[in-house]
Amino acid sequence: MQSAVTCPIPFQQYPQVLLAHGGGGRLMHQLIEDMLLATFQPEPDWQHDAASLTMAGNRLAFTTDSYVVTPLFFPGGNIGSLAIHGTVNDLAMAGARPCYLSLSFILEEGLPMETLWQVVQSIQTAAQQSHVKIVTGDTKVVDRGKGDGIFINTSGIGVLEHRGFIGPRSVQVGDAVILSGDIGRHGIAILSAREGLTFETTIESDSAPLVDPVLELLQRWPVHCLRDLTRGGLASALNEIALAARLTIELESAAIPVEGQVQGACEILGLDPLYIANEGRFVAFVPASAASDVLDCLQQHHAQAQIIGHVVDDQRALVMIKNALSSQRILDFLSGEQLPRIC
Amino acid sequence: MQSAVTCPIPFQQYPQVLLAHGGGGRLMHQLIEDMLLATFQPEPDWQHDAASLTMAGNRLAFTTDSYVVTPLFFPGGNIGSLAIHGTVNDLAMAGARPCYLSLSFILEEGLPMETLWQVVQSIQTAAQQSHVKIVTGDTKVVDRGKGDGIFINTSGIGVLEHRGFIGPRSVQVGDAVILSGDIGRHGIAILSAREGLTFETTIESDSAPLVDPVLELLQRWPVHCLRDLTRGGLASALNEIALAARLTIELESAAIPVEGQVQGACEILGLDPLYIANEGRFVAFVPASAASDVLDCLQQHHAQAQIIGHVVDDQRALVMIKNALSSQRILDFLSGEQLPRIC
Repeated sequence: MQSAVTCPIPFQQYPQVLLAHGGGGRLMHQLIEDMLLATFQPEPDWQHDAASLTMAGNRLAFTTDSYVVTPLFFPGGNIGSLAIHGTVNDLAMAGARPCYLSLSFILEEGLPMETLWQVVQSIQTAAQQSHVKIVTGDTKVVDRGKGDGIFINTSGIGVLEHRGFIGPRSVQVGDAVILSGDIGRHGIAILSAREGLTFETTIESDSAPLVDPVLELLQRWPVHCLRDLTRGGLASALNEIALAARLTIELESAAIPVEGQVQGACEILGLDPLYIANEGRFVAFVPASAASDVLDCLQQHHAQAQIIGHVVDDQRALVMIKNALSSQRILDFLSGEQLPRIC
Repeated sequence: MQSAVTCPIPFQQYPQVLLAHGGGGRLMHQLIEDMLLATFQPEPDWQHDAASLTMAGNRLAFTTDSYVVTPLFFPGGNIGSLAIHGTVNDLAMAGARPCYLSLSFILEEGLPMETLWQVVQSIQTAAQQSHVKIVTGDTKVVDRGKGDGIFINTSGIGVLEHRGFIGPRSVQVGDAVILSGDIGRHGIAILSAREGLTFETTIESDSAPLVDPVLELLQRWPVHCLRDLTRGGLASALNEIALAARLTIELESAAIPVEGQVQGACEILGLDPLYIANEGRFVAFVPASAASDVLDCLQQHHAQAQIIGHVVDDQRALVMIKNALSSQRILDFLSGEQLPRIC
């Protein structure tokens, strides 16, 4: 395949890269779909969170993420733990058991050595908790003012042990949509650290490895699709799945767990928790017949797991949300970005 | 294994990260060995350029590199082609056939979209020439002034098809050291682009994929060790190997090919080509009996390939270089760094 000579993103409309091109909304999806996927054509094995590869008869998953979160330390984690959780979760979402990670630093000249050491220790702790081993790495240093303390890339390899395909194209009409816990914590934790906001009690990031609940689900039930709720939050994740599956998702607003303090912070800040990033939450699409058993299992891992909706036979590929008065509205992709650099 | 509580790098001596911590010399090795390898303990499978993994009975190689080269475009390449060549070469140096790459961007807000598009096209061309497929990716955007245009991470997976271990611990007394071509081009190309230096003809980077010559060597001869000559150049690569192999390497200065213009530029700039980075050159350690056949093969790929020295039974683990008058001197590790951000 040859690259097109003309850039699929019109320079006149978008002469420069904007923060929103990394924000999880429409512009980011345009950049990825129209420029990157169109050029590299990773299909048919490409999936949202990781690629699935067959090497010498074995099915592997392979994923990468760079982490640019600011500030480097926030309630409930730091860039180091986040860089492990984010990448092992991407492997888990592809239905893989995470095995090996690479670790690459871009450090800014002048970074306190002690900061680096704290991050390195968090990385090792998080890797142990996520049952992965860091096996290869790289370190680069950029001049003062050309970076922002620490950027981290982790890439990961996992093994696909089950037979089915976990992804939007396995989603079926009637599937239950189960959310693994309350939403909005990570984004609000980052924002409060960044802006020096204080609440009654500290809102901690939900950043955590999702390997254990996911592997349990995969062993016991025919899971159709998994997706962690990172940039763009629940709303963006579900819109991506609806679009890829060409089916519509109906949600019950009242069923979506948002902690009181997170809800309060969102109201003060004018933010919608449905679009806020999480780093330890996911949605599972499972057959309706398995929904209550899957829910029981997920509630063992997190008490606030809930069935939040289901898939309907409507090829408009929308996400619809019903409020307490039973009126429905479209829950759309975010146009720009809500919070930059949350991961 | 638990992380030590005390940082192995003394904060009093090194309170901050310096550019030299990424420069390929002593400080970088101290950071990697004492802090990172000591914490993550990737042994016994860890190798310099890539980790070798056994997954479901298959031997794979896994590697990662972040690219922060400045300027983004230079004679003979750009950050995109470099990010492919560097990573496929790391896999090749571990004796692996490169298969799949991940691609992760950290873009600075305000980057011209056209620049990104040029880099993306170079990446795709270089991937095709290197026989690898980009299968997964990530895009982050950082605020203006918190990055430097484009940083790229590529991680790669390859298949180890041969039986032997390719690395310093396979190096034996008597091995010939064969250099795959002339040295110093990449560093001088970067430096001249950065400083606006002009020479009679443009010195182009040697950046290129090394997959084809390496796979040919591996199929035909019992190769003991391979190493590409990136940060820190030939001198650093050989010092690392000598140290890891606990053997001494003797070089013939006159045998090391340096192009006249590169030599001239080095003299003007006060640089030693032995420490200048390359991105398309490697050394192979092979049994003396195979040396002339290997040389013939490598000269098919690059006319300036040369046998530049051999391994001697001297456990001081030094690199010695003999000049035209047959006097020998120690060719040491570089203490700081010669050229920052050349890859």
